[in-house]
Amino acid sequence: MGALDKGNFDLELEDSLKLGLIKLGLEEEPRTAQIEDAVRVLLQGLGEDINREGLKKTPLRVAKAFREGTTGYKQNIRDIVQGALFPEAGVDKRLGHAGGAGGLVIVRDLDHFSYCESCLLPFQVKCHVGYVPSGQQVVGLSKLSRVVDVFAKRLQDPQRLADEVCSALHHGIRPAGVAVVAECHHIHFPNLESLFLDSKPEGWIKVLVSSGSGVFEDDGASIWSEFLGLLKCRDLTPDKFRKRNSADHWCPSQATSCTKIPASLGSVNLGMVSAVASIIRSLGEDPLRKELVGTPARFVRWIMNFQNSNLEMKLNGFLSYKPETPGSNGEAKFSKKLHYELGLPFWSQCEHHLLPFHGVVHIGYFFGEGVNPIGKYLLQSIVHFYGFKLQVQERLTRQIAETLAPLLGGDIMVVAEASHTCMISRGIEKFGSSTATIAVLGRFSTDSGARALFLESLPSTNNF
Amino acid sequence: MGALDKGNFDLELEDSLKLGLIKLGLEEEPRTAQIEDAVRVLLQGLGEDINREGLKKTPLRVAKAFREGTTGYKQNIRDIVQGALFPEAGVDKRLGHAGGAGGLVIVRDLDHFSYCESCLLPFQVKCHVGYVPSGQQVVGLSKLSRVVDVFAKRLQDPQRLADEVCSALHHGIRPAGVAVVAECHHIHFPNLESLFLDSKPEGWIKVLVSSGSGVFEDDGASIWSEFLGLLKCRDLTPDKFRKRNSADHWCPSQATSCTKIPASLGSVNLGMVSAVASIIRSLGEDPLRKELVGTPARFVRWIMNFQNSNLEMKLNGFLSYKPETPGSNGEAKFSKKLHYELGLPFWSQCEHHLLPFHGVVHIGYFFGEGVNPIGKYLLQSIVHFYGFKLQVQERLTRQIAETLAPLLGGDIMVVAEASHTCMISRGIEKFGSSTATIAVLGRFSTDSGARALFLESLPSTNNF
Repeated sequence: MGALDKGNFDLELEDSLKLGLIKLGLEEEPRTAQIEDAVRVLLQGLGEDINREGLKKTPLRVAKAFREGTTGYKQNIRDIVQGALFPEAGVDKRLGHAGGAGGLVIVRDLDHFSYCESCLLPFQVKCHVGYVPSGQQVVGLSKLSRVVDVFAKRLQDPQRLADEVCSALHHGIRPAGVAVVAECHHIHFPNLESLFLDSKPEGWIKVLVSSGSGVFEDDGASIWSEFLGLLKCRDLTPDKFRKRNSADHWCPSQATSCTKIPASLGSVNLGMVSAVASIIRSLGEDPLRKELVGTPARFVRWIMNFQNSNLEMKLNGFLSYKPETPGSNGEAKFSKKLHYELGLPFWSQCEHHLLPFHGVVHIGYFFGEGVNPIGKYLLQSIVHFYGFKLQVQERLTRQIAETLAPLLGGDIMVVAEASHTCMISRGIEKFGSSTATIAVLGRFSTDSGARALFLESLPSTNNF
Repeated sequence: MGALDKGNFDLELEDSLKLGLIKLGLEEEPRTAQIEDAVRVLLQGLGEDINREGLKKTPLRVAKAFREGTTGYKQNIRDIVQGALFPEAGVDKRLGHAGGAGGLVIVRDLDHFSYCESCLLPFQVKCHVGYVPSGQQVVGLSKLSRVVDVFAKRLQDPQRLADEVCSALHHGIRPAGVAVVAECHHIHFPNLESLFLDSKPEGWIKVLVSSGSGVFEDDGASIWSEFLGLLKCRDLTPDKFRKRNSADHWCPSQATSCTKIPASLGSVNLGMVSAVASIIRSLGEDPLRKELVGTPARFVRWIMNFQNSNLEMKLNGFLSYKPETPGSNGEAKFSKKLHYELGLPFWSQCEHHLLPFHGVVHIGYFFGEGVNPIGKYLLQSIVHFYGFKLQVQERLTRQIAETLAPLLGGDIMVVAEASHTCMISRGIEKFGSSTATIAVLGRFSTDSGARALFLESLPSTNNF
């Protein structure tokens, strides 16, 4: 394994990524290079050195992820569905319905991801698809998932996604009707000001949409109750579905009040905005389509949260604070107690893929009883400070520990738990996976009992 | 969408499947054709017409699934890991550990599937992978999943899978240590005799294995407690891990007592056994490898459960039973009550992919109060009767309803809920998805209130 030496490093990566593109037939297209160029503009706009390790190949990775994540524009349903229509005798209509003539068929809990057309961030989709067969034919079950994938792998809105899947299946299978329910989860879109006011915003924004054709066209039809009856435990009731044409936009990038937008836009780097517009064009979309017009500015607004330097100034005052450290001699050390602050939320941006990761940080430290020298607010601020950067979780965890050590007496343990968008989107699609990282300083690095004590105090469920 | 007419049907399917093979670079290889030939031998051994609709393209589908599911033989870790090693400063060792020098990194809940080398059925793997960085470098998180995938996509045993992942990551990342925990779920391997004695065998056989290198090499090391401490809620304690070299084989195909095997083998079609051996050879494995020697016979034993005809004889006596039907006149109809039998387990084999699906059947019917004309045992037998075939779930559901209608007075509702191996393996990999199908006859087909009443009675959780 000598080739692991750093000399081969860059060449190998380029080869391996290019191989991926060749497999997708994307390598010869100038579009990939256009996206790479645009990503370089974004990185520079964030004040980053595009040649630093960790970022050097980010443009290629981002281009690959965008191209892979939007392959749905090239596929068509005819190719997918037609090869998997199977003749299946149904029962005589006078007797009932089942098989290839009536009788509901549902595939539940299909996990997919899509790209939000409003802000370009990936969102998760849990889809339930049903249809009522007609004409003595059924479709292979996996095709219901493949069709969802075609429309998910585009720039989307939840309602349109459900409608397009429904309509495509209706035309492809020619059933008595199709029903689609999609539970969509979008990462929260924090802005720094709101975070410092409210440290517990929820991690995901959820929306529930439905679409029906044929026998499902009427929302009040009893067949809808049967469909939902087979989705027990999922807490889906018709009153929870988003109203079609609801004025509220689900994407949190749109939630910022209108009066604020011009001000934010004023500070937006126009070169970055046009770089994002060129990415959208390279994906085969029209950046002037009504729903996409504001997207580049919104994406830039999101990503500027992770600018290289803007928080340093905010926290500098705090970080120069020197607490009195009781128990700096050996004797007093024994009177120190384990304190902890659990579940501090954070948002960050993976510097390898320019995709968000978010989760919680748990902090443990030994300090004299009753003494909390800096308070929860500063702990949370430091967590946000290191979150709002282009980051990797390992570094985030270490930086928080190193920053807190001089403030909290040197004995620090930090655990970060996060859900990474780059693990649920792209080719990897590991829904439900999460990452935990640990940093320890001082007593925690030698005392396994102290580590165990802190780990036991961690909450056993995490809804991040 | 006129091209959906049946004329284009076969051509389209072949094109679409071949396109899949071309993408994988598998199309020109004679190995795919060898697998197809072997599958035809298996289908004929099951007494099936290999030209019937539904089976015509099964050989190609099975070949494609096997080739896709075993691509791990062709990949190597060097290509995957080396491009994603990133320099990452760690803390000074005297102060603690974190970042690129110590500090545990864990990716949890990675869902994969693998093929059991003992019986060739796919099994599910939920993997948790951790490592302690060293040498000021970390690996991209997604690579931990990609490396699991390389070894999962082979004919495997859980312990060897964990060991191979652990060793490959150790050599690839050169960390202080690697820990791998794999929770594996194998479909139950019922045989007809045992099913008729015990109608509630569990759906999945579970095994928990672990593997550690470097600082994780000692099972008793405190770093293992920290690793498991970060896997809270998953009910993983060291005493639950399978002992290395345990004499008990996890695969249920091996659970049949030794005295039985020769008898079963005696009735096994040797042409089918050598067809399975040729599939193993086509996948690049050696059918004479110690762990694989018995695999073809075990696979044939499994698949012969789904032979076309063997249960008909068993049930014929029952099915000719004619119950007295109280309330055949209109008046008595109103005295009929809704009865139900919920959660009857079934096992079946998807005829499109020769992969198992299993789940539960719920049966509702209207009958005079207190009258249960045929009993739960016969209901369960009829369910098994239609399960143990090459099937599709839609047909299974209809056939159960049609068979029960004359026995139970004509008003029948059948709901089948199942987990399909073909939805978690192959390219589709929709872990956690499930399929529900409905058949209704008589009163249930016109009375939506009756359907609703029955659906409300269904259990809200299903552990199938």
